[in-house]
Amino acid sequence: MIPQNSSLRQRFAHNLRKVRLERGLSQEALADVAGLHRTYIGSVERGERNISIDNIERLAKALDCQINELLNGE
Amino acid sequence: MIPQNSSLRQRFAHNLRKVRLERGLSQEALADVAGLHRTYIGSVERGERNISIDNIERLAKALDCQINELLNGE
Repeated sequence: MIPQNSSLRQRFAHNLRKVRLERGLSQEALADVAGLHRTYIGSVERGERNISIDNIERLAKALDCQINELLNGE
Repeated sequence: MIPQNSSLRQRFAHNLRKVRLERGLSQEALADVAGLHRTYIGSVERGERNISIDNIERLAKALDCQINELLNGE
């Protein structure tokens, strides 16, 4: 759970990790599928990166999930 | 209307303009409220910018709308 008043960036970070783990994927495996770097995935999941809309879409496609699932409040 | 298979960036561009106009705001007025530059808003609405998650949130707050409203397919 993450508070509703978290920033969008924090919610995305939390949800990305959650969905990735639900899929049973390592950061490395997700990075491979998405064509991104493993350390980039890690920093996004820690909320350190101000990720762009193109990479948000790329990760949603790699996880085969709805964009909303990655951006929602809980 | 914008096709469902449009990129997330294109959908955001389309929806941003739509919601801004629904609010009766000029690009300049939205830029002022969001603390961004008018030309930046214009380029986002043309899909030229790979906007970041922090600025997506900033624009949703300035428009007082849900994030989903800016990212959805139609």
